[in-house]
Amino acid sequence: MGKSRLEAFSDGVIAIIITIMVLELRVPHGEDLSALAPLLPNFLSYVLSFVYVGIYWNNHHHLLHALEHGVTGTILWANLHLLFWLSLFPFATGWMGENEFAPIPSAAYGIVLLMAGLAYWLLQRAIIVHDGPESVLRRAVGSDWKGNLSPVLYALAIVTTFWSRWIAQGIYVLVALMWLIPDRRIEHALQHKGR
Amino acid sequence: MGKSRLEAFSDGVIAIIITIMVLELRVPHGEDLSALAPLLPNFLSYVLSFVYVGIYWNNHHHLLHALEHGVTGTILWANLHLLFWLSLFPFATGWMGENEFAPIPSAAYGIVLLMAGLAYWLLQRAIIVHDGPESVLRRAVGSDWKGNLSPVLYALAIVTTFWSRWIAQGIYVLVALMWLIPDRRIEHALQHKGR
Amino acid sequence: MGKSRLEAFSDGVIAIIITIMVLELRVPHGEDLSALAPLLPNFLSYVLSFVYVGIYWNNHHHLLHALEHGVTGTILWANLHLLFWLSLFPFATGWMGENEFAPIPSAAYGIVLLMAGLAYWLLQRAIIVHDGPESVLRRAVGSDWKGNLSPVLYALAIVTTFWSRWIAQGIYVLVALMWLIPDRRIEHALQHKGR
Amino acid sequence: MGKSRLEAFSDGVIAIIITIMVLELRVPHGEDLSALAPLLPNFLSYVLSFVYVGIYWNNHHHLLHALEHGVTGTILWANLHLLFWLSLFPFATGWMGENEFAPIPSAAYGIVLLMAGLAYWLLQRAIIVHDGPESVLRRAVGSDWKGNLSPVLYALAIVTTFWSRWIAQGIYVLVALMWLIPDRRIEHALQHKGR
Repeated sequence: MGKSRLEAFSDGVIAIIITIMVLELRVPHGEDLSALAPLLPNFLSYVLSFVYVGIYWNNHHHLLHALEHGVTGTILWANLHLLFWLSLFPFATGWMGENEFAPIPSAAYGIVLLMAGLAYWLLQRAIIVHDGPESVLRRAVGSDWKGNLSPVLYALAIVTTFWSRWIAQGIYVLVALMWLIPDRRIEHALQHKGR
Repeated sequence: MGKSRLEAFSDGVIAIIITIMVLELRVPHGEDLSALAPLLPNFLSYVLSFVYVGIYWNNHHHLLHALEHGVTGTILWANLHLLFWLSLFPFATGWMGENEFAPIPSAAYGIVLLMAGLAYWLLQRAIIVHDGPESVLRRAVGSDWKGNLSPVLYALAIVTTFWSRWIAQGIYVLVALMWLIPDRRIEHALQHKGR
Repeated sequence: MGKSRLEAFSDGVIAIIITIMVLELRVPHGEDLSALAPLLPNFLSYVLSFVYVGIYWNNHHHLLHALEHGVTGTILWANLHLLFWLSLFPFATGWMGENEFAPIPSAAYGIVLLMAGLAYWLLQRAIIVHDGPESVLRRAVGSDWKGNLSPVLYALAIVTTFWSRWIAQGIYVLVALMWLIPDRRIEHALQHKGR
Repeated sequence: MGKSRLEAFSDGVIAIIITIMVLELRVPHGEDLSALAPLLPNFLSYVLSFVYVGIYWNNHHHLLHALEHGVTGTILWANLHLLFWLSLFPFATGWMGENEFAPIPSAAYGIVLLMAGLAYWLLQRAIIVHDGPESVLRRAVGSDWKGNLSPVLYALAIVTTFWSRWIAQGIYVLVALMWLIPDRRIEHALQHKGR
């Protein structure tokens, strides 16, 4: 299994996910601003998810870029497992937006974020195991504070949403901002290797 | 017709199929867990189909990888025929999930699986005929017990679903698990050839 | 503008068209065969359109393959014009299927076929003009009886559907079968050129 | 981050946007021409948006083609920002068409056009900053009268639509026609550089 085909397929799936999310922004029936107003939560949750999927696309690229050897069955299925959780973004986004960030939909959104984060971590693991202890990725990941902090923050938001929906949303935004800065660790490790 | 364009087009179609299936998971109207509960069968059938489409993508890749000569009109249409049956997955998955694995929708799902399996076999045939008796694929396929057993099991599930829906679903899960192990036969045959 | 990017973009659009058409096959509410029965016309029109889009994808590939020089603005917009008419297939297919091949939806379907055929012919023209009188494509197209006959048959079907819907559908099927045989003329001309 | 992957991902997203817009053309229930008539504004707004997305695809290609050095995080996010506004086209198109070019939906459409134009300008900026003052793109863009005039015209249309919807639509059509002529400036600058 060539790396480039895995990359192209993942890119295709991610491109479709990021685009069909907009279909949950249903065209309203009225022609006034008052028809648009109820869509504001849907729009905000769409923006949040667009940024998250963009982050995953970017980090996924860096991850596969660091993959030195071929694609094994384990890596392939770890990748499909990640795409599975990403594919639930349109649903979770739509449900959260439709219900104006109500506790249970927001917690469900957090669970999808948490599972996608876990799936990403598993994929990273599978690649490191395959590439060996001297792999570019292993050195690049290092202590991986962002990867370790994110699930803690997602879990915090999932619990907090039952107490205050805005603090929970604030945490989701915070994690997104934390990741918006591209993962320069892998880039650096790759450069040090003289590629 | 270049092999790579056939591959890219098939990957595109499969990526779209695997992603739009999630659109059948309609965002519920309530904001409680009770609004989510009726979606459980839809979710489970989505997971099953996601795994099946993932398996097809993986095996399809191995199949085309083994193709040694150019793409003929027969191979091209055998490939489109496979994509046609795969394109019915969102519909069959949605209908089965919506009706909580009722007999007739589950049988319809089994028929789509059966036809996709048949289409895959026809595509494999077309490639073997084209590549000749000494082809990598022919030696790789060998006795092909999985390919022979699957249609028998699908047919069994289609019949069984009218007696017990859970046994039928168990068979669908079993076949998926059987295929989850990637098709190492082709990989081995390719390696023996010294590629 | 590189030929390969035009090809990749067109493939992407065609892959999406062929796949979202299935979304017009709405999952029925009942769980009996009687719930499926009304969908038969939708299914048949889906099959017809799937074959037509497959034919366009195949012929489009041959057409671009024959393109010897770079992509001009005219070729690019002639290509987008073709994709525009192809993008109306899901709508026309859904409307015709929903109304059991009623005259006006069937005529609308024929008009989309006619316009897509015209757009294809214009794209072919644009490429021939650009590649010059000695181009591979010009020699390949030759008398182009299929390209000349198709619009006549589409027009015939559009008129006939007001008299008998089944004769009109028969003509649509006939034209599809006529094109199913891949366009070997271009392949031959390319081979004669010693490529 | 390789330029080709950014290009492929953007092409994928744009191909999906241009194609799912047609899903807002809902299949009507009747089988008469009278069932089709109310869809005329939807169809016209679809045509307008199809042309705009086509223009963005074309110009985006030229823009990335001129990019000489690698893709930075800034360029990547400037590109995702552009894709975000383009992804709102199906929604804005559907809302405007559904309401027969009523003032507020038409102004919303203009705002999406304006923001997409701004996002394009920001992406252009990011590339020029990265490639340096001697970059191909900088010389190509030159005075960029089209890029400067478009936002003014969009703003004019947004205001005008409250007075006359047809003048506003006329302005949208005018800007599209102005851009339909491909951006030869970049092509020329690239050729002068001897590429």
